[in-house]
Amino acid sequence: MVTRKEVAELAGVSEATVSRVFNGIGPMKAETKQRVLEAAKKLNYHPNAIAQSFARRRSGNLGVVLPYVPKVHIFSTYYFSEVLSGIGEQVKQSGYDMLLMFRTPGEESDYSNIFRSQKVDACVILGATDTPGERSELRKLEEAGQPFCLINQHFSGEHFQEVDADHVGGSYSAVKHLLDQGYRRIGFLNGSPEYSNSRDRLTGYAKALTEAGLLDVPPSDTGEINPSRIPPQWYYEGNYSRTSGYKAAADIYRYRSEIEAVFASNDRMAIGLMQGLREHGLTPGKDIAIVGYDDSDAARVTNPPLTSVAVPFYEMGRLAAERVLNRVMGVSPSAQASAAAGPHIQLSTTLMVRKSSRST
Amino acid sequence: MVTRKEVAELAGVSEATVSRVFNGIGPMKAETKQRVLEAAKKLNYHPNAIAQSFARRRSGNLGVVLPYVPKVHIFSTYYFSEVLSGIGEQVKQSGYDMLLMFRTPGEESDYSNIFRSQKVDACVILGATDTPGERSELRKLEEAGQPFCLINQHFSGEHFQEVDADHVGGSYSAVKHLLDQGYRRIGFLNGSPEYSNSRDRLTGYAKALTEAGLLDVPPSDTGEINPSRIPPQWYYEGNYSRTSGYKAAADIYRYRSEIEAVFASNDRMAIGLMQGLREHGLTPGKDIAIVGYDDSDAARVTNPPLTSVAVPFYEMGRLAAERVLNRVMGVSPSAQASAAAGPHIQLSTTLMVRKSSRST
Repeated sequence: MVTRKEVAELAGVSEATVSRVFNGIGPMKAETKQRVLEAAKKLNYHPNAIAQSFARRRSGNLGVVLPYVPKVHIFSTYYFSEVLSGIGEQVKQSGYDMLLMFRTPGEESDYSNIFRSQKVDACVILGATDTPGERSELRKLEEAGQPFCLINQHFSGEHFQEVDADHVGGSYSAVKHLLDQGYRRIGFLNGSPEYSNSRDRLTGYAKALTEAGLLDVPPSDTGEINPSRIPPQWYYEGNYSRTSGYKAAADIYRYRSEIEAVFASNDRMAIGLMQGLREHGLTPGKDIAIVGYDDSDAARVTNPPLTSVAVPFYEMGRLAAERVLNRVMGVSPSAQASAAAGPHIQLSTTLMVRKSSRST
Repeated sequence: MVTRKEVAELAGVSEATVSRVFNGIGPMKAETKQRVLEAAKKLNYHPNAIAQSFARRRSGNLGVVLPYVPKVHIFSTYYFSEVLSGIGEQVKQSGYDMLLMFRTPGEESDYSNIFRSQKVDACVILGATDTPGERSELRKLEEAGQPFCLINQHFSGEHFQEVDADHVGGSYSAVKHLLDQGYRRIGFLNGSPEYSNSRDRLTGYAKALTEAGLLDVPPSDTGEINPSRIPPQWYYEGNYSRTSGYKAAADIYRYRSEIEAVFASNDRMAIGLMQGLREHGLTPGKDIAIVGYDDSDAARVTNPPLTSVAVPFYEMGRLAAERVLNRVMGVSPSAQASAAAGPHIQLSTTLMVRKSSRST
């Protein structure tokens, strides 16, 4: 193992100077720096990186907090895979590595510990839920000035950095499309209301039906809707898994005389629902219209192809990583980012119409 | 910020004793240790983790090397998403975090640097290619005694730790199934031969056709086959992307009088191929039989559903992580792992028959 001392001797400088070169601490004559680097190269000297990080207080890692559910293949779900691909792209561009940290939902989430360990310089949080414990932990991070950003989850009343999508608008366009096709009895298969993006979808659904005079459920001051205000034969809840969509098919089939179309909160549930309805003898796209959400790869290959709402998950991941890494590296935000104004960024969604929802 | 000194004072011990408790350096009276931990808890003292890792030379991170290709959503490909899910499961079980490091293929791969940085204790490598530069880098790691494991890639003649699947057997079973269905003119759409698993598929394909008397291409001493020995109208190469399968459709269509069935090296290419053939007016599963590989989610939802070879990617990821982490933590391998004998573990594959390949 080559030591700092040997490099110092070869370069004809002090050991402290060698350290200053490798820790980027100036000022320093260009010629001296050059001499040290050449000596280091000649001797194949590599300063201990942890000691170096310790000096600079930089790990070079972006932390990514992910929910851990035993046996669930998290990277195989469209949402997580796309968001992570976007984060990965930015991390690579910024010369960072990406430290994945799994957290069991419901477990006390000690987010502060992530930074305390100094294993990451900044952090992106996926799958946060809106619970009092979670809010209080995130507030602690905020107060400590730690750079973090939430993805696809909005905490109303807080000033956390967030990159979200317009799920109210996306859901509104999905249900409006069904109305335009002539459907009137439209059911809704939602995910868990612990996620703000589930509550947003409910708001968009209720807004479209209220505008059409089929419901009378205007949003409250917070923009939110209580699910109990939707007729029970129209409202169903799953957990975003294919199995939960499949299970909902039995209930929806029971009320088939009161349901002509179903809007599902993601493609996985929509696909499970289509499979279940088919087993009950209903042909999706013919006997009952279906619209999904996410516009995953699977939407294009189902039979019939699934109408769905495209969400820019990849871009959301990339943008969240860019925001926190810029903060760490002291880069001022671009004009575009400044225009977004404030900590909450919301990207738009796009309805993709396919055969599962056409009335003709 | 609470200091070590304050903890030492409250516990009535020396500062060195506090350090020894937090760095796990013994021997130490249980009562003393208890007193230090209680004082630390009372004062909310958290030793600096990087300094601690420095003392212990442990980062608590498992490194995962991934190929980086701009714009390719790597987490959205079935192979990577499943392998990473398996690694993630094991990492969580072992109390580790997972450091993803992206590497541009073709770039000089300085694997030694991964360990030199002390950011990881062990490493799993995905997407390694069999090139002289890569071999020499991996040999350096091996000689330095660094714990690493390759997934789905075999370097013949080396003793690297590897977790692979039986791709010769998987491909053999796919082609044997087509033969059993009565097909004789069977084409092969392979991926890049830089990957050992592509070469293994070619070996399995040639073995089945040679046994059936339709080819005369026995494997060489190394078990490998030169693609030039396959009649050119039967052999095609893509790069495992859907687009490359779609492009191959034009060539395969040109030779349609000499091809009744195609075995593709992964589902993505098979799906692109089916789409392309359909645009040329051929109905997959009827005019031409298709078999894919990987048994991805998509195989179940294509029209017709795709016959494919299931590979236990999740288990491969989990097992590779378990092997290297056990080595780091000094855990002796289980009886089962010992029975696997030697550095190369190979898991078996399973043919899943669906409608795309049935002659009736």
